[in-house]
Amino acid sequence: MPDKQEKMKARLPRGFADRAPDDIRAVDEMVAKIRAVYELYGFEPVETPLVEYTDALGKFLPDQDRPNEGVFSFQDDDEQWLSLRYDLTAPLARYVAEHYERLPKPYRSYRAGWVFRNEKPGPGRFRQFMQFDADTVGTPGVAADAEMAMMMADVMEALGIPRGDYVIRVNNRKVLDGVLEAIGLGGEENAGRRLTVLRAIDKLDKVGADGVRHLLGKGRLDESGDFTKGAELAEQAIDDILRYVLAAPGLVMGTASKGTPGEVQVNWRFPDKVEPTIMGNGLTIEKLFKLFPGNDLYQKGLGELAEINSLAAASGYIFDRIRIDPSVVRGLEYYTGPVYEAELLAEIPNEDGVVVRFGSVGGGGRYDGLVSRFRGEPVPATGFSIGVSRLMTALKNLGKLSSANDTGPVVVLAMDRDTESLGRYQKMVAELRAAGIRAEMYLGGSGMKAQMKYADRRGAPCVVIQGGDERARGEVQIKDLVEGARQAAAIAGHAEYKEARPGQVSVPEADLVATVRGIIEAQKAERKG
Amino acid sequence: MPDKQEKMKARLPRGFADRAPDDIRAVDEMVAKIRAVYELYGFEPVETPLVEYTDALGKFLPDQDRPNEGVFSFQDDDEQWLSLRYDLTAPLARYVAEHYERLPKPYRSYRAGWVFRNEKPGPGRFRQFMQFDADTVGTPGVAADAEMAMMMADVMEALGIPRGDYVIRVNNRKVLDGVLEAIGLGGEENAGRRLTVLRAIDKLDKVGADGVRHLLGKGRLDESGDFTKGAELAEQAIDDILRYVLAAPGLVMGTASKGTPGEVQVNWRFPDKVEPTIMGNGLTIEKLFKLFPGNDLYQKGLGELAEINSLAAASGYIFDRIRIDPSVVRGLEYYTGPVYEAELLAEIPNEDGVVVRFGSVGGGGRYDGLVSRFRGEPVPATGFSIGVSRLMTALKNLGKLSSANDTGPVVVLAMDRDTESLGRYQKMVAELRAAGIRAEMYLGGSGMKAQMKYADRRGAPCVVIQGGDERARGEVQIKDLVEGARQAAAIAGHAEYKEARPGQVSVPEADLVATVRGIIEAQKAERKG
Repeated sequence: MPDKQEKMKARLPRGFADRAPDDIRAVDEMVAKIRAVYELYGFEPVETPLVEYTDALGKFLPDQDRPNEGVFSFQDDDEQWLSLRYDLTAPLARYVAEHYERLPKPYRSYRAGWVFRNEKPGPGRFRQFMQFDADTVGTPGVAADAEMAMMMADVMEALGIPRGDYVIRVNNRKVLDGVLEAIGLGGEENAGRRLTVLRAIDKLDKVGADGVRHLLGKGRLDESGDFTKGAELAEQAIDDILRYVLAAPGLVMGTASKGTPGEVQVNWRFPDKVEPTIMGNGLTIEKLFKLFPGNDLYQKGLGELAEINSLAAASGYIFDRIRIDPSVVRGLEYYTGPVYEAELLAEIPNEDGVVVRFGSVGGGGRYDGLVSRFRGEPVPATGFSIGVSRLMTALKNLGKLSSANDTGPVVVLAMDRDTESLGRYQKMVAELRAAGIRAEMYLGGSGMKAQMKYADRRGAPCVVIQGGDERARGEVQIKDLVEGARQAAAIAGHAEYKEARPGQVSVPEADLVATVRGIIEAQKAERKG
Repeated sequence: MPDKQEKMKARLPRGFADRAPDDIRAVDEMVAKIRAVYELYGFEPVETPLVEYTDALGKFLPDQDRPNEGVFSFQDDDEQWLSLRYDLTAPLARYVAEHYERLPKPYRSYRAGWVFRNEKPGPGRFRQFMQFDADTVGTPGVAADAEMAMMMADVMEALGIPRGDYVIRVNNRKVLDGVLEAIGLGGEENAGRRLTVLRAIDKLDKVGADGVRHLLGKGRLDESGDFTKGAELAEQAIDDILRYVLAAPGLVMGTASKGTPGEVQVNWRFPDKVEPTIMGNGLTIEKLFKLFPGNDLYQKGLGELAEINSLAAASGYIFDRIRIDPSVVRGLEYYTGPVYEAELLAEIPNEDGVVVRFGSVGGGGRYDGLVSRFRGEPVPATGFSIGVSRLMTALKNLGKLSSANDTGPVVVLAMDRDTESLGRYQKMVAELRAAGIRAEMYLGGSGMKAQMKYADRRGAPCVVIQGGDERARGEVQIKDLVEGARQAAAIAGHAEYKEARPGQVSVPEADLVATVRGIIEAQKAERKG
C-alpha cells in the first residue's frame, strides 16, 4: 500500500471522456435503430481496426517538431508509422482496396466506431468520439447518392423524429465548382481562394446572407470585434455566387412545407436579406440551369441534382424529406460530387444547454478519389457519417430515447452477515433473476441506514428485508421505495413515520417474486400514466 | 488520379484485423446476451476512453530504446505520455478512484471494449482484441467473488452452453501463497521463484502432473527438444505443492458429475499420475485444512474458499456449475485473493481448427491493490474478463449463434437505366423495405448476367426483374435463387434451362411484396426443417 504522499492522481487524459450508464444505453438503443435501417437497405457491417498505417490515412510521416499533426501517431518496432484513425472513411478506402476482387460491387457497408483527433481540446470538443457511417463503393451513378439521402431520411424517422422536423439537404460540389469556374476561380492556382469561398458559403447559417457577402468581399467584422479576411471577389462575382447559393427549388428552412414532385416551390432562407431581383416565385431547376449556361461542370452537376431530385420524388421523398439546397458545402476537401446533410429543424437545447435550431447531425457526399489512391483506377464512392454523440444529445432533448426510464435493481439487504444468512439472501436474488427481475444482494459492510441510502442511489424500485424475526416467521419484508418516499413526505413526525412503515409489506417467502413483480409493474404503470 | 507507379499499397498494420459481417453480427448477438445477464445482476454499464495517461496504466515512462514496451505509447503536445489501454481493469481503477465519492459502493459495473498489446504479432495473436469485463469495487467480502462465479455460470447458460459442458473453477491466491510460504518461499526475496512456481502450476493442463513436477524441480525437456529451467525445489516441497494442487473436493474435468452441497466428492484430473498416498475418496475441504495446519495465510484462504463454496451451494451452483479447483492460477500478478476461470469442457475446434477441449474463455479474480494506488486507502475489488473473440469462436463451433442463418437482401435488377426506370425500381425497394424486407436496387453498371452473379454473392433470397415487356403488362418477374439453383441442377441442357426458367414467376406489380415474402418464408422454413 503506497502512503498518501506517493499515491498517483487519478485523472482522464485531456480531451477524453468517460461514458455514463445513461449515455451508453442511449447510444446502444440509437445505434440499434440506425443499424436496422441500414440492414433494410441491404448494407452489410464491416469494421476496421482503430490503428492504420499513417500513410494509408492520407497523412505523411509526422515531422520531428510536430509528430502528431491532427492525428495521434507512433512508431512501430519496425520503424513504420502508425496512427489512430481520424475518421471511418479513409480506413474503409484501405479495406475496399485491399479486398477489392472478392467484394460484391457496388459494395454497400456500414460501421460504427471511435475516431480520434489530435486537436486542442475544449468544452464539447473531444479527442475521441463515435461516428456511424454508411458507404456505397463502386458506382458512379447518382442513384447511389439518392439512396443515401433517402436512407438518412428513413434513419431520422426510425429514431422518432417526425417528418417536417428534419430535412436532408442535397447539393453538388460540381455545381459549386462550376460557379467558381464561371467567375474565373478555376485552375490549380486558385485552389486556396476556392476553399475560402466554400468556407464563406458554409457559414451562411451562422452569419446570414450579408455576412457571407462580406466574407466573399473585403472581409467581416464580427460582434466580438474579430476581423475575418474576405475572399476579395468583385461585386459581380459575389452576385453570381449568391444567385446560386441563395436560390433553390424546394429549399425550406424552419418548417418544411408540402410539395409534389415537379411542382415549383421557392423558399428563401433569409427572405429579408436577398435582393428583390433574384427573389420571386417561379424558380425551377430548369431556371437554375440558365444561371450559368456556358459552364459544363455547372450543367453536369445540376443535371445530377435533377436526377437525384427525380429519384427521390419517385419514392415520394421530395419535398418533405429531401430538398435540393445550393448552400450545402460540407467541409471535407475530398468530396467530388453530390453532398448531403441531415438537419434537425426542431428548436431544442444543444450540448451546451442553449435552445437553438439544432442543425446538422450528419452528412456526407461522393468521394471518388479516396479508394483510387490505392488502386490506380477510378473507384467511385459515396457515403455519409452520423455524429453519434451529437445526434444522441438531440434525441435525448426531444425525449425520443426510452432507456431513460430504466429502473435500478431490487436490492436484498444484508441484515445478517453469517455465511448461512448470506446464502439465503443469495438464493432470493437468484430467484428474482430467474424470474427476469434485476436484483442484487447488498455486498458492502454498512448498516441498515447506509444500505437504504445505497438502494436509493441505485434507483431500486424496492428493497427486500429479512432479519432473524422475519426468518423465524418464514417471511420477508418488501419496501416500495417510490410509494414509501411519497407516504413519508406526507407524514410529519419521526415516531409516526416509524409506526406507519410507509410502503412496506410482509409476505411469506414463497410470495417474494410475485410481490416484487407487482410493485415494479405498478411503478411502471404510474410512470407512463 | 495517381498513376499506377505512384499508387499506395493497401495493407493492414501488422497484428491488426478487419472484422467480417458474420463476426460482427455474432459478437453483437453474444455481447447482448452477456449484457442481459450482467444487467440482471444489477451491474451498470460504464466505459472509459481507449487512451489513458501511461502512468495510470501501471506502466512508467517508455524509455528511449524501447518506447513501447508492451503498450502503444505516444507523447501529448504538453509532453505527457499517453497509452492505448492494454486491459479494461486498470482504466476502471482510474475511473473509480476519480469518481469515488459519488459512486454507490459497492460499485458493480460492466464494459465491453477494445484493448491493445504492443507485442510481436503471430497467427491468432492480435494486437487489438475485445474484452467484456464485470467488476465489483469496494467490498472485501468473498460474497462478491461467489457472485462473480455464479454470474459467469449464468453467462455460459445464457449463451446456450448446457450445464456439464462448462465449469467455473475457483481457487485462491492466498492459499497458493500460503503453500509457498509453508515450503519456505515467502518473503520479497523469493518473489521471482514464486512466479516460476505459479507459472509451472498454470501449465498443468498442457504438460500434465509429471510435467509440472519437472518444472518445479530441475526442469523439463519438451517434445521439440526445448529445455525449460525448473524452480529447483526440493522433493518434499514439490510433494507439498502437488498435494494441494492435484487434490480438490469436487474437481472434475471432462464431464462434470453431479453432487450435492456438503457431499464428499474427490476427483483427479490425472488419476494415473497422482501418488496413491494422496488419492482415495473421502477428501473434503475439512481435510484440505489439515494439509498445512500451521500456515495462517493458507488457512485464511481456504476459509474463503469454503465460504464461496457454501454461498454457491446455497443457490445450487455446486458442483455442477462451480467447483473449487486448486490448480487454477491465472497469470496476472495483481490478483490478491480468490481467482476464477470459466472453462468449456466440450471438445470442439479451436481458432486453428484443431479439435481440443476448448479450455478457458474467461476469468478473473480479486485485485485489492489496483484502485488503492490512486486512493492511498484500501479499496478491495474483484472482477472478471471474457475474451470475446475466443468465446465467439467456441460458440460458432458449437452452433450456438443464430446469426449465421441471416439472409441477404432482395435485389431489384436494373434492367433499364433511364431515370424514370430507376425511379420505378427505387419505388419497389422502398415498398419492400416498408414491409420490413431487406432490399436493394442494383446500383452498378453491369448487364443481366453480372447482376445475377452479384445477387448470388449477396446471398439474395430472390431477385426482382422488370424490363420493358413486364412494365407494359404491369408485371414483375420474381426469381427464387434457392429453388432456381436446385431446379437448374436437375436440368441438363442450356436450351431446356431457358425454356423452364427455374424458380421464376410473373406476378402483377401489386403482388410484389406478398410474393417476395412468401419466397423468403418458404426458404426459412426449409432451412429449419
